[in-house]
Amino acid sequence: MSRPRSGQRERIARATGHLFRHKGYHGTSMADIGAAVGLRKASLYNHLSTKHDMLRELVERGAVLFTDGMAPIATSSDPAADRLARAMRMHLRVVAEYPDVAIVFLQEWRQLEDEARLRVCQSRDRYEAAWRAMLADGIREGQFRPDLDIHFAALSLLSAANWAYQWYDPRGPLTSDQVADRFVEVALRGMASRESDQGERDRQ
Amino acid sequence: MSRPRSGQRERIARATGHLFRHKGYHGTSMADIGAAVGLRKASLYNHLSTKHDMLRELVERGAVLFTDGMAPIATSSDPAADRLARAMRMHLRVVAEYPDVAIVFLQEWRQLEDEARLRVCQSRDRYEAAWRAMLADGIREGQFRPDLDIHFAALSLLSAANWAYQWYDPRGPLTSDQVADRFVEVALRGMASRESDQGERDRQ
Repeated sequence: MSRPRSGQRERIARATGHLFRHKGYHGTSMADIGAAVGLRKASLYNHLSTKHDMLRELVERGAVLFTDGMAPIATSSDPAADRLARAMRMHLRVVAEYPDVAIVFLQEWRQLEDEARLRVCQSRDRYEAAWRAMLADGIREGQFRPDLDIHFAALSLLSAANWAYQWYDPRGPLTSDQVADRFVEVALRGMASRESDQGERDRQ
Repeated sequence: MSRPRSGQRERIARATGHLFRHKGYHGTSMADIGAAVGLRKASLYNHLSTKHDMLRELVERGAVLFTDGMAPIATSSDPAADRLARAMRMHLRVVAEYPDVAIVFLQEWRQLEDEARLRVCQSRDRYEAAWRAMLADGIREGQFRPDLDIHFAALSLLSAANWAYQWYDPRGPLTSDQVADRFVEVALRGMASRESDQGERDRQ
């Protein structure tokens, strides 16, 4: 038996991500994965003991992409509105550049079991909390209206960002940054405080 | 062989919707469907010739729920903002009351083939067009700002509405109507024209 090579493992991860995205976790068999990378089942088991292992790995990759992308934005001292715009660009870039991993993270995480499921839920909660924190900062800074329902505003923004994988086409006319900017533009107007809105009016 | 009864067929449709929602189309076998309704494969084939038949039927049911719900709203002469709020309530009610059918419609439609896929795409296009038409009406009525990007505003609204199935819990504290109203509230502020916004300000 050959020793597992990390290049081979990476090839398996990519192929599995593609299969999970298009056929779902339950619709993908070890035989499908083997066929996609040209390995017999016995050789495949050298690299991968269960389908669930690979699901966990892919979902965790997705979590890391979003979490690492958010870290510098969450800790920046820029105005909340600017950070929200950066966060939306980052989120859509992950969806556009790593569609397999992003979609498996967004759609197949429910198939995770036990410990792995708990960990991804915690990671997801922290990510959503980072969005809510930016909105709370924007209220404190006087940019967003004080009665803003932070929970629902964050859900609206994340829903638009998450649903993008259903229709965004990287070969289409708009970059993911342009899509992000358009979503954020409407959202920022919706959340603007009377004062900041009036300020903008006075400047015009 | 027993003659197919429509009650049995309905039972099969419900069980299949539940399976497709939780395991995906590719992850569900005819044997799974048979086991869920307590029929042997041979009896199941009396009611259902292929898994794809049932997918087509379920996706079409979903399309009809959304399309029929939209019809009276699209043709109403109420102000656009009111119609948008009604459309959002209707959409979330379908998701909340018929989660299996709604999720299969939203998530598994890509597995449809040929003619059936084309029909559902056309139905979806008409539904999205109805949302864009309400936004265009709102601009004409002077309620929404004239430079609103109708395409993206409709996508934002529908994304929030569609993603709801990922987190909405009918046993939670909010009704689907309350969720809809909160989404629409932020969106309407974001889309308001300077004039209508000023009007609201003057009334306060």
